[in-house]
Formats: sequence, structure tokens, C-alpha cells
Amino acid sequence: MRAGPSPEEVRRHNLGSLLRYVHLHGATSRAELTSLLGLNRSTIGALTAELTTAGLVSEAAPRETGRAGRPSLVVRPQSARVYAYALSVEVDRLRAARVGLGGRILDHRETARPPGTLVTDVLPALAGLVGEMRADVPGDARYVGTGVAVAGRFRRADGTVRLAPAVDWATEPVAAALAAELGGPGRLTVGNHADVSALVEHSRGAAAGCDNVIYLHGDAGIGAGVIAGGGRVTGYGGRGGDVGHMVVNPYGRECSCGSRGCWETEIGEQALLRRAGREGETGGAAVLAVVRAAMHGDSRAQFAVRQVGDWIGFGVGNLANIFNPETVIFGGTLRDVYLVAAAQIRSRLNEVALPACREHIRLRTPGLGNDAALIGAAELAFEHLLDDPLLG
Amino acid sequence: MRAGPSPEEVRRHNLGSLLRYVHLHGATSRAELTSLLGLNRSTIGALTAELTTAGLVSEAAPRETGRAGRPSLVVRPQSARVYAYALSVEVDRLRAARVGLGGRILDHRETARPPGTLVTDVLPALAGLVGEMRADVPGDARYVGTGVAVAGRFRRADGTVRLAPAVDWATEPVAAALAAELGGPGRLTVGNHADVSALVEHSRGAAAGCDNVIYLHGDAGIGAGVIAGGGRVTGYGGRGGDVGHMVVNPYGRECSCGSRGCWETEIGEQALLRRAGREGETGGAAVLAVVRAAMHGDSRAQFAVRQVGDWIGFGVGNLANIFNPETVIFGGTLRDVYLVAAAQIRSRLNEVALPACREHIRLRTPGLGNDAALIGAAELAFEHLLDDPLLG
Repeated sequence: MRAGPSPEEVRRHNLGSLLRYVHLHGATSRAELTSLLGLNRSTIGALTAELTTAGLVSEAAPRETGRAGRPSLVVRPQSARVYAYALSVEVDRLRAARVGLGGRILDHRETARPPGTLVTDVLPALAGLVGEMRADVPGDARYVGTGVAVAGRFRRADGTVRLAPAVDWATEPVAAALAAELGGPGRLTVGNHADVSALVEHSRGAAAGCDNVIYLHGDAGIGAGVIAGGGRVTGYGGRGGDVGHMVVNPYGRECSCGSRGCWETEIGEQALLRRAGREGETGGAAVLAVVRAAMHGDSRAQFAVRQVGDWIGFGVGNLANIFNPETVIFGGTLRDVYLVAAAQIRSRLNEVALPACREHIRLRTPGLGNDAALIGAAELAFEHLLDDPLLG
Repeated sequence: MRAGPSPEEVRRHNLGSLLRYVHLHGATSRAELTSLLGLNRSTIGALTAELTTAGLVSEAAPRETGRAGRPSLVVRPQSARVYAYALSVEVDRLRAARVGLGGRILDHRETARPPGTLVTDVLPALAGLVGEMRADVPGDARYVGTGVAVAGRFRRADGTVRLAPAVDWATEPVAAALAAELGGPGRLTVGNHADVSALVEHSRGAAAGCDNVIYLHGDAGIGAGVIAGGGRVTGYGGRGGDVGHMVVNPYGRECSCGSRGCWETEIGEQALLRRAGREGETGGAAVLAVVRAAMHGDSRAQFAVRQVGDWIGFGVGNLANIFNPETVIFGGTLRDVYLVAAAQIRSRLNEVALPACREHIRLRTPGLGNDAALIGAAELAFEHLLDDPLLG
């Protein structure tokens, strides 16, 4: 609603666009950038010069092209010199990485998360992982901030699963304490595990180029990150995408949320383990064991996988009718289940979804594999830099 | 990704912002516009002068304010002189209106839609309604275009319900024929009934100021228009929001879509009439008769309304977990059912939805009543003008 941007705002916007492009796509020639960003050559030259001076990109002649004429310089993100810390708080482990601009993992640590620890109790361990990595950071490298991906649920010592206080976490005093541990003025940004995975799979993973994406994440519970029309579906107060509590079976089991027959009760870890006759076991390794058993012909495990696959297809069919996505990505333990139940999932999906909502759907596993949440968490930290590259 | 806008683009953007504001909010003083649009007084003066010259707004001194000093001029949309035609193709009737800038209905006609007529067969009747209204249009009034809201389903003579070819309708030669009937160069824009209702309830109705809105529309089927984060959820190829085919009862009845237990099979018109012992009847009047009987103590009708209300609450609970909307609006026949089943709906919603997804939810009927689709259709036509007020 305001008056147009000033030349200074335009320049900052263009710097951000250029840096974002090479951050997402890697080495790109000036000639390509000129065409991609719709700017003229001299503007691109001035922008890359500024970003080079700021230590954010480097320029070099390309390898031998075989063409005549002077080759266009290639612009690369300074992955080794500009970095963020990415932390992933998962149900049964804690992961930390140092991620360079461009999304490259430069260093990586992880440790088990003791059962029943509160999210807020894991901060010292996370700070410890970061401390280990910090010893190896080159003196001239620049820290831009830290992103944290928090799994929506955690399991208590008594085996019950509870919602993690992920949303309010950023405002807690402990977050400030962690920020101090992490080394000063950089920002700390917290996101939900499924959300950040969806964002990064959308920007540089299995759903690149798709405007409508559903990322489903399985751990102790089922979460989702949804991209609709190119933007994240957040809902009121940032609390949307709780597809694990879409009720799919009104006559089903009681759910930990107090309702009955939630999708999670039919496709979650416990549903699979129960059907496979392994009640009492928990965790990603137990899920993987069932999947492996099914691949090796164990009929009880095959039954469990078929049943769960059927309900996965059912819920994805519902979501297809509601969102009509181009791509659905299965992450976490759902990735393992998908790999053996793909046919079952697709078959039930085809029964539930309308033709116009299913024919184009691609079912995928994460293009960034198990690193989706970590690289996604780093994106949260880089976002400030990409919005305004010369700010800090 | 492009360079910043030119001064001419900024001016056009500001003209559009000002016109859009008075279009949505009615008479507004220059002083308020200055503050609301973040522009200075002389810019507002220049913009209103241009829009006045173009015949889009008028300016006048306000009524006695009781304050000292020269009062700020009040800017109004030229509702009587700038108009669009709005057409609504519903399951059992056709409606047409002439709608003035500002969303004021200036004239209105309707006629029954013969059972079983294809959407494409109703064009002559629509053109006839428009022809009647045209006789009364003042000579100096300006036509800006026509918007058409098409119900997603229609009922055939044999009683079956089919998807209307709404989406591809705009590209059909018949649309060109209608455009010619409607008087020349103005544009014809076609939208889905629930979508346009959602848009207009969001911009000036029961959900004004909410960023996350679900508009549910009942007629022969169940449709929805969804606004998430302020934008419409369209899905791939514009085919999202088919919540009527979210399966809520895996053990339920076969649906016309080929699946089983879709929400529509539990809350649609036929579900209500069947439970009320009125199988064989159809249409909005039959639904209203059941609702009235329930209000007057008919126990069979009350049973039907409770059952349907329960399933409405169930599905809204699922959508609440998925989208976390601030406002859910019940339109069409769902409006009538909501008025007698509100308690039942809310109670089941509270069982299904997570606390963070239900506590703030407001359940509403359309603020624009039965005119939501018509005024929404007109918005489709005005959109071009608001994007670029001096274009045509």
C-alpha cells in the first residue's frame, strides 16, 4: 500500500535475488544471471562486485568451455567462509551441523537423546555439539546465525508421547542462553521439523519447481509441512498442518490427543509395530526392522506394512482432494515404509482421490535424504542474510 | 527478480490501492486515506483527482463534523456509474445482478434452472436476464466486465449429480458467445461458487481481517473455498478445495465420485433428506423443510439434523487440524443446517480438533447472506479495474 521502493531498496532487493539464486543453484555464470534476473550486464557486474567485497560470493573464470570468445565469469557462494549452525532436535537423537552458504554441510555431529528429556533439557547437549565443531572453524569464517528444527513430538520415559513446546520455544529464556552459547550476536530461529523439511525440499530438493507440496514426516507421531501456491500453509498462530490428527477412522483407536482414529493411530510407528506383533518396541530402528522383515518375506511384517500402506494411501488421497499437490514426500520413518508399500499406497490413493487430484501426483522420498531437516534449519538462519545481504 | 518499478508503475499501483480501499470500505476521507496508504497529502490529492476525472470516484465535503477547521473531503466509489454484471449458475436457479463499484447490487433478476440442463445450456437464459437489466442502465454508466460463479456440481434429469465443467468453461466457444451477448469488449471471468464466496467474505464479509478462512458451500454437493495465509488455496491446475470428497467414513456409503464415505455422503443434501425419511426429494427447499420441521419439534427431522451436524463438526474438526483457520463460514444449504445444528457441530468439532486448532475458531454464516456468490462474481470483474484503474 506504500509508495514505491527507493533506489537503495531496489539495490538491496537485487543483491538478495542474486545471492539467493547462487545459494540455491550453485555456480552460475554472469551471463546466466543477467538473463535469469532480468537485469543488464553492468548491473550484474556491480552486484557481484559488492557481494564479493562482502565475502559472500567468489568469481572465477569457468573451466575450458570449448567456445570461442571471452567466457563469462562464474559466481559461486562462499560456502567455506559463510556458515550457519543447524540443529535438529529429533525424538531419539540430537544432530548438529555447520552448514555453508549454498547448503553444503561442512561439519556434522550427533548424539542420542535420552528418552523422556524435555526439549529444553537438551540445550546443553546441543551447545556441546556446537562447541566441538567450533574448534575447527577457520578464523576468517563468518557466522550468520543458527536455525533449529524441532520435532513436533517427543516421547517421555513412561512411553507416552507428548507435543513438544516447539512453537513457544523461541521466546523462552533458555533460547537466549543457547544463543549465547552459540557465539554471540547471530540470530536463533526455530521451526518445526516437517515445516523446514518441506521448505528446503521445495526450494532445492525433490519438489523443486512445484508450487503445491506436502511433506509428511513420521517419527513418534506424524507431522506435515504444506506448501500451497508456493507459500507455506501456517494457519492461525503458525499452528497448521497437523495432518496426523486428521481423523480417518471414526471407529478407530483412541489417540494420544484425546480424539479417536486420527491418521497417526493408523499409520504411526506404534500402529506398524502393533500390527507386526512387536508391541512394546519403539523408535526408528524398530520400524526399519519391520520393513526389512517384510522385504525378506516375513508374512506378519508384510501384513503390517500392507495395512499401514493402505491407511497412508487413504490419508494422502484425502489430502490430495483438499490441496491437490503435485508432489507428496515421505520423510522420517514414513520414508522406510513408503519404500516397501509404494504400490499399496498408490492403489488406495487412487480409490480415494478424484481423478483431477491424483493423476499428476508424484510420490517421492526426500531429495536431501536424512539431511532435509538440517539443511532446512540452516535455511532459517540464512534467510536473514538473503533478505538483506549487506545488513550484518 | 526484476529491477524496481518505474514511477509510472508506482503511480498505477497507488491508484489501484486507493480505488481498492474505497471499493471495499466505502466512503473514506482523504485524511484517512493519507494515513492508511502511507502516502502524503498531496499525493492522495493527485490520485483522487485522477480517479475523479476517470469517473471512478467522487469527492464531497462530509456532513457536519462538529469539529473546528476545514474538514477533509470524503472519497466515494462511483457505484451508480461504474458497474459489472454478476452471474451465478446454481444447481436449481440462475441469478444475475448488475453490481456497482463498491459492491452495491443495483439490479437483480433470477429464474429457475430446469433440472438436468448443462451449464452450457443456460447461457441464453443468463443472457436474457442481463438483457432485461440492460434496458435500465443509464446512458453514461460504464461497464467493466462480467464475473460468473458456477456451482461445482449440477443435477441431471435422472437425479444423478455430476461435476460441472466449471474449470474449462472459460475457454469454451459458448463463453465467447455469452461475452458477445453481454455487450462487447468487457472481460468475462469464471470462478467456482465456493471460491468466489470465500474471496468476498474474506475481503468484505464475515471473515474480513482473517488470514485463514474456510467457506463451506452446500448445494447438491459440498464445496469449499479456502484462504490460507491471506491467499487462496488453489492446488495444481486450480483444482483444490474439494473437501466434499475428503473421506470421513471408510465404512460409509458409495459416493457419486466412485469412492466411499466422502464427507458429502454424510452431510450433503441427500444424507439429510434420507435420514429425515424424505428420500426422493431434492433441492434447497427440501433441506429447509427438514430444518423447519426440526425447529418445530419433529423428532425424525431432529434426528437427521443431529446426525448431519455431528458429521459436519467431524469434518470441520479435520479441516481445523489441517488448516487451523480463524473463521469457518457455512453457506448455501449448510447455512440452514448450521442454524439448527450449531451446538452439535461445535461439540463434535471440539472432540476432533486439537486445542490449539479449535479454541479461537469462529463459526459463522455468510456476512453477505445469499448474495456472497453474486458479489464475489462481480469482484472477479472488478479485479482488472482495481489492478489498473486507468487501463480501459
